[in-house]
Amino acid sequence: MVRFSTMATGMLLVCGLALFLTIKSNLLHSQQFTISFQRPSDCSVEQFYDISSQSCVKCGPNQSTSATGLSCECVTGFRVLATNGASITCQQCPLEKTAVTEDGYGCILCPGSLTEQGTCQCPSGSILGECQRCQASLINTSQSCMCGSNILVSPPSIIRVCVMYGFKMKYKFRASVYTNLTACQALGNMCVMNMHSFSSVANDACGLYNTIFRATAALGSTQDISYWRANLPWLYYGDQPGLANRVLQTEPLPTGFSFKGHINLVAAVYNARGDFLQWEKVGGNNLQLCPDTARRQEAAYTFGTAYQETCVLSVADLLRVYAEPLFYDVFVDLSRGEDRRLLPLPTRNLNQEYNRKFINQGNLNDWYLSRRVLLVDTLSGREKSLGSLPKVIRIASSLVPGTQKGQVFPPLLSMTYSDVLITAPNTQTVSVSFAVDYEMDQAEAHMKTDIALGVLGGVSVLYSLVKTASWKRRIGSPLIDMETVLKFLLFYAGDLANVFFFITVGTGLYWLIFYKAQHFVSVLLPLPGLQEERFVAYVGCAFALKTVQFLHKLIQQLSVDIFFIDWERPRGKANKTIQGTPSPVSIWRTYFVANEWNEIQTIRKISPTFQIMAVLFLLEVVGFSSLALRDPWSDLQRPPQSYSPPYSLTLRYGLAATLWLCIGLLQIIFFTAFHERFVEDKIRQFVDLCSISNISVLLLSHRCFGYYIHGRSVHGHADTNMEEMNINLKREAESLCGQRGLLPNTDTQTFQISITSRLRLQYDRILEPLSRRNGPSRLVDAASGHPFDQSTKAYHTMNRFLGSVIDHAHRDMEYVVRDKLFFERVIGMEFLEPMDKSIFYNDESHSFSDVLFYGNEATLLIFDTLFFCVVDLGAQSFILAGVLTYVQQMIFRLIRNGIGQRNLANKTLVDKRFLI
Amino acid sequence: MVRFSTMATGMLLVCGLALFLTIKSNLLHSQQFTISFQRPSDCSVEQFYDISSQSCVKCGPNQSTSATGLSCECVTGFRVLATNGASITCQQCPLEKTAVTEDGYGCILCPGSLTEQGTCQCPSGSILGECQRCQASLINTSQSCMCGSNILVSPPSIIRVCVMYGFKMKYKFRASVYTNLTACQALGNMCVMNMHSFSSVANDACGLYNTIFRATAALGSTQDISYWRANLPWLYYGDQPGLANRVLQTEPLPTGFSFKGHINLVAAVYNARGDFLQWEKVGGNNLQLCPDTARRQEAAYTFGTAYQETCVLSVADLLRVYAEPLFYDVFVDLSRGEDRRLLPLPTRNLNQEYNRKFINQGNLNDWYLSRRVLLVDTLSGREKSLGSLPKVIRIASSLVPGTQKGQVFPPLLSMTYSDVLITAPNTQTVSVSFAVDYEMDQAEAHMKTDIALGVLGGVSVLYSLVKTASWKRRIGSPLIDMETVLKFLLFYAGDLANVFFFITVGTGLYWLIFYKAQHFVSVLLPLPGLQEERFVAYVGCAFALKTVQFLHKLIQQLSVDIFFIDWERPRGKANKTIQGTPSPVSIWRTYFVANEWNEIQTIRKISPTFQIMAVLFLLEVVGFSSLALRDPWSDLQRPPQSYSPPYSLTLRYGLAATLWLCIGLLQIIFFTAFHERFVEDKIRQFVDLCSISNISVLLLSHRCFGYYIHGRSVHGHADTNMEEMNINLKREAESLCGQRGLLPNTDTQTFQISITSRLRLQYDRILEPLSRRNGPSRLVDAASGHPFDQSTKAYHTMNRFLGSVIDHAHRDMEYVVRDKLFFERVIGMEFLEPMDKSIFYNDESHSFSDVLFYGNEATLLIFDTLFFCVVDLGAQSFILAGVLTYVQQMIFRLIRNGIGQRNLANKTLVDKRFLI
Repeated sequence: MVRFSTMATGMLLVCGLALFLTIKSNLLHSQQFTISFQRPSDCSVEQFYDISSQSCVKCGPNQSTSATGLSCECVTGFRVLATNGASITCQQCPLEKTAVTEDGYGCILCPGSLTEQGTCQCPSGSILGECQRCQASLINTSQSCMCGSNILVSPPSIIRVCVMYGFKMKYKFRASVYTNLTACQALGNMCVMNMHSFSSVANDACGLYNTIFRATAALGSTQDISYWRANLPWLYYGDQPGLANRVLQTEPLPTGFSFKGHINLVAAVYNARGDFLQWEKVGGNNLQLCPDTARRQEAAYTFGTAYQETCVLSVADLLRVYAEPLFYDVFVDLSRGEDRRLLPLPTRNLNQEYNRKFINQGNLNDWYLSRRVLLVDTLSGREKSLGSLPKVIRIASSLVPGTQKGQVFPPLLSMTYSDVLITAPNTQTVSVSFAVDYEMDQAEAHMKTDIALGVLGGVSVLYSLVKTASWKRRIGSPLIDMETVLKFLLFYAGDLANVFFFITVGTGLYWLIFYKAQHFVSVLLPLPGLQEERFVAYVGCAFALKTVQFLHKLIQQLSVDIFFIDWERPRGKANKTIQGTPSPVSIWRTYFVANEWNEIQTIRKISPTFQIMAVLFLLEVVGFSSLALRDPWSDLQRPPQSYSPPYSLTLRYGLAATLWLCIGLLQIIFFTAFHERFVEDKIRQFVDLCSISNISVLLLSHRCFGYYIHGRSVHGHADTNMEEMNINLKREAESLCGQRGLLPNTDTQTFQISITSRLRLQYDRILEPLSRRNGPSRLVDAASGHPFDQSTKAYHTMNRFLGSVIDHAHRDMEYVVRDKLFFERVIGMEFLEPMDKSIFYNDESHSFSDVLFYGNEATLLIFDTLFFCVVDLGAQSFILAGVLTYVQQMIFRLIRNGIGQRNLANKTLVDKRFLI
Repeated sequence: MVRFSTMATGMLLVCGLALFLTIKSNLLHSQQFTISFQRPSDCSVEQFYDISSQSCVKCGPNQSTSATGLSCECVTGFRVLATNGASITCQQCPLEKTAVTEDGYGCILCPGSLTEQGTCQCPSGSILGECQRCQASLINTSQSCMCGSNILVSPPSIIRVCVMYGFKMKYKFRASVYTNLTACQALGNMCVMNMHSFSSVANDACGLYNTIFRATAALGSTQDISYWRANLPWLYYGDQPGLANRVLQTEPLPTGFSFKGHINLVAAVYNARGDFLQWEKVGGNNLQLCPDTARRQEAAYTFGTAYQETCVLSVADLLRVYAEPLFYDVFVDLSRGEDRRLLPLPTRNLNQEYNRKFINQGNLNDWYLSRRVLLVDTLSGREKSLGSLPKVIRIASSLVPGTQKGQVFPPLLSMTYSDVLITAPNTQTVSVSFAVDYEMDQAEAHMKTDIALGVLGGVSVLYSLVKTASWKRRIGSPLIDMETVLKFLLFYAGDLANVFFFITVGTGLYWLIFYKAQHFVSVLLPLPGLQEERFVAYVGCAFALKTVQFLHKLIQQLSVDIFFIDWERPRGKANKTIQGTPSPVSIWRTYFVANEWNEIQTIRKISPTFQIMAVLFLLEVVGFSSLALRDPWSDLQRPPQSYSPPYSLTLRYGLAATLWLCIGLLQIIFFTAFHERFVEDKIRQFVDLCSISNISVLLLSHRCFGYYIHGRSVHGHADTNMEEMNINLKREAESLCGQRGLLPNTDTQTFQISITSRLRLQYDRILEPLSRRNGPSRLVDAASGHPFDQSTKAYHTMNRFLGSVIDHAHRDMEYVVRDKLFFERVIGMEFLEPMDKSIFYNDESHSFSDVLFYGNEATLLIFDTLFFCVVDLGAQSFILAGVLTYVQQMIFRLIRNGIGQRNLANKTLVDKRFLI
């Protein structure tokens, strides 16, 4: 127990320190990388769609858009004079050579008529004598004019062409823009297939890309983004240290994200040859490899839903479906009405190497963000008969709000690839997973928690000190010794447990309410793992400390001193028999009262089993457990076809604890306001029984403090036959006799008592022979006939002694009756020390139930709540938690009943066989 | 109650009739349709693969296999002389014309050299002067030689060609075999797209198919199957009445199916043009439209797993993925090693019309089975801009074992299609479902159940008659009146409930054990719906009847007569006071005993809450509930990615009831063998208490039958002080005093008693004034002072009267003590009628607990079991069942306690306030 408490104190110190921590935030403003969203269909007739900059660009003079819309061509009667790679210049053909050659670069004299495009039309029987030019990207290594039809068989040729274009601008000056752009895209794709990896020495695809990037600085950048060179695909963010941090965490997205809204992602899709294919809306299965229904896949893009899907795919299927790799430039679509804007999604490729080091697996500040992703690369491995497949695909939307204003920072797309060596594609499988997570910096929440913990922890130290002082007074000892320190720690454990409990429940409830109810994003759940670790640790502390408190109270209750004072006297002198011995007073009333006391030891203000059943019913049948799912919906029943996200530990705890407390409170209200008033109040019944049976109860929970239930019969005698009993009951019902109170004309039967040390010493002295009986010399006593004698003798002595004290018959053991001060009630401590006279405090609220389970409902309820929640946090099963809570309650009830019964038998001298 | 019992009797009659039903089975033997499994790759060099018969066929002389392997061609130097549609004849070219034309039908003189294939090779500068022939299936309507390249735009031409082939064999005699076969397949596919529907008048695709089928009877059948005409696809089974029944239910599959084994299905796949594409293994998503992981989809083909998947698909996706419809000839692969055999899967197309009637939606005998299925037809609707999509695809493996030998009959493939009118493909969706079910004829099982029900029902009539007779004797009335009949029905309800209960539990357990444990298939679960209906009805009967029995017992217990006889007498004459009045005997011992009796009213042999918790724990946490899934596995914990089949009601019931009973029995064993012996036995304690407190208990459960607990103190007095009590207890522990039994020197304290009517009359007479008190004139009495007087007077009179009877002080109310005969114990009836003397039967087994919950554990346990199971059958939730069972137990406990307490107060005249 000492260990627990020490830990708890340690906790507080830590929290105290945390108060002074401040969170520094980097407020550097970097430019927001958004571009205007234009599709080929958005371009006017005088514009072409530049696949490199993904925007419409105006054609030059005398030019019109080609049929594909992806390039310009000279209008009829004009030939291509020059091209700088991205644009062409047109020149009118002279009058003597009005026809343009098929490739558009020359003017010729046409013997026949002209086509609509201004090229020569062969008269029948003639053939066209010109030579068409090959697409530059498809010239094969033999330099013949036979175009390679299948890019898949000769990937290296792609690189070579682009190298030539990039480096030697003048060589092939007249090659078409289209070819040039495509070839650069193809080079970029090779780099992507190479995992964006490059080093300062090797001369591979990414190295070449970077060389070209640096060499073409003069061409300027596209879309005002400095990392996006004209005519080249955008592959990298810069390599400045800390850039990743700035890109991801400095400037929020301009749109306020609606919770439960849809995240619109779009992607420009390219094939390996570098051809621009189309703009695709991300969704369905274009980024999700695992097959599933559209409805469930759609859940990944609902803002706020934690999405996770893992599956095992057959390699044969992958080879079939992804025969040609596709490359995606992914954007967040921020369009609102006519204002069509895109935000490029930075990508963190975990396989990316920089000078042979996996830079993206380390610290955020070292990351080297990139663009353009592919899912399955079945191409680059073909040379060595390998297929390189992704193992894990993860979209993590990193959200770092600086304030509560619902700002969302750019999402981050993380990719991890794994190489699969193709040996037996029909039986080989590969496991892939796709996840969407939302992250919020929990530092502020943690700080608030720590502040609360520090403040409340401090208050609870004071409260525990008061409790310790009260305890010192009640045991009548002024010394501060080891035991005092231990007691303080025990009290402190209980108070600190409450602090931890209410902070964790409050946190859980806060998340539950704010996360589920928000319309615009303001809070996001702590992520499983590190972010939830601290919360779980707090719950663990609360449970451990509460257990200490509970065991402490249990042990206290099991060792309480109790005595039943029988007021019944043999029936006057008139009843003396002729022989002179009075008719004995029957012990059965004492048996009855003791038996009842034994039975009320473990009754509670609530029905603990009903509690478990009700919580299980609400969680598992009504479906409250759905509220703990990591998604923004608050429906209780989900259709079975819908996606089911993982559970949040925080929400599970908040939900379970809140439900448990609510049902507990409802039960307490029901039992207090209805059941005890109209059906049965066991505590009240016990007090009444004392009165009817002419027996008082003296309870000493501490050495000099306890409770007294005054049970002196108003009829003088209770040990009588049915007739007289009935008459007595009837007289009392008709108020024909005196009142039951200790003082004349009062009704107060229950008291808290502070007794003098003298009284306690006398009490102990009477019991002394019995306590010896319970000592180690039991065997001897059991054989002799003494114990019974001693026991009954002690019983009679005690009965007489206590009776006389209550009757004010002992001059030196007087007592006074008074009301407790309001403040005394509040802090639970008596201000007056019982020096000469004992003090009886009026106590209408039956606080003697503090030595029963009944009076400690709060502790028990919180202990049960924590027990239930801790089991659930460990096993993620409310049912298991319910079952184990039931078993725990049963075990402690058995312990309390069993040992409590033995204690009762020992202290009251009533034989155990009557406590049934 | 009468109604219930009448229903129960009705049941029995029905069952009695069922005994004489016999199940006729059709033992006609039809030929088993199996074919040899050959794939194109299985054909030798001299064979070609006949796509119509799906087998290898030898090429004629001078022929070799073509490159595709699907036809023969003449060897080099030979030309095609003639073709009959399925085969060609080759003729050597004459020496002067050694070259064969490109189409293979002519010999020409070649100016240049020959190719390897024996055709002309043009010298450079020359062109080949011959004309190639078009594929016949692609000749378009204009009869020009321009081949239609896209079948999709002109589907009607397909039909026309095949018509010409089928009917006019000589016209186009020289067309190649390949073209002919393909065209017929294409016609067949048109018929499939037309839902196999035809009428005797219309001349559509299916009509044409049938005309050709009849016209080509001379060509003979393929693969020895008369419904499979040479060169034509197999589309229909014959239309003889009852053929479907014979095909599906006469002859079992030759292979014994291994439970949990894999069902191998293969399909020959054709496209709409009639081209044979390949043999495909059915699995993955070729027959399953809903996307899912391979692992879950694979579960559909595990023998014994009920599979069901429903999803909503986007029409746009369907149009994209199924742009060209595929046609499947599905077979069961029965191959074992080298013996490769296939069984054609008969198909039931629910949309199939015959003379404008949906024949396959009615009786099995009218079905017209077919072959060849398609999943999505996006083709035939194109003319009218419609797409016809399947709504429900269902593979039902119909299994009808005649014996327990594990025979499996051919599976049946059922298809239902729905037409989707394409209006907005991007937003339109269509719901599809795919299911695999296993069916067994449950007639034999039902018959066995009915026999058991009939026999046991008959026995229970006898047993109920005995009970009624016993009851008549115990109430001391010989008349057979309305009440007797009612009582008989009530007893019968209880016994019949037990019969229903044990039959249903037995059935459930039988399924659970035999279904889950079998290796070779012998039993299959009843299907949900009709087959389970009867079972659920039986469970309902059991529950309703058990409820009647339970309520009957409850009412009996709440009106039992009880009296506490106090043996204590005022302490002798010596104790007389001087005034002459004796010191009153204290009533507190009676209060104590009454209080204890009140408390043991609802104790049980088990802990009912622990029972619920343990069952929930085993079902939901340990995972026993997985055993109720409709699949052959018996693992308790399933990986979350695996397919989760639906639950079987039968298995759920069998599982829950068995677990409940097992845990109940374990608890009873624990409490009887351990707890009551070593910890606490409340019943034994009560008997001891009677003895110690000098109080006997007389219980009359019937008018002339009841129980007696002899509690006369061996010490003469019990109303004494602690000292004497302790001494008494000690003396008894040391066996220093007499024995407690009623007869001298015996220990037997508990008796069953049959009392004479005279005794009973006297008993009633004493109580008469009190029963009037409980009558309607209560208001008056409450005001007057009389009731108390009457009550105490009656109490004393009764006490004296019963005491004197037990003491043999009444000559005319004598009694004898004897042992009960063994047979009397067994049937629960006394043979001797108490005419002159009452009879006290020794009863060591405390059978007075029959008037408490304690002695009726069997009824309560079965009632709880049924309650739990009935709730679960209705709601399919064990947790809800557990919670409601708890609530039910609580309510009945409150009723029993509350009304029992009132009854106790009324009968024993002890004030209710002491029963706490």
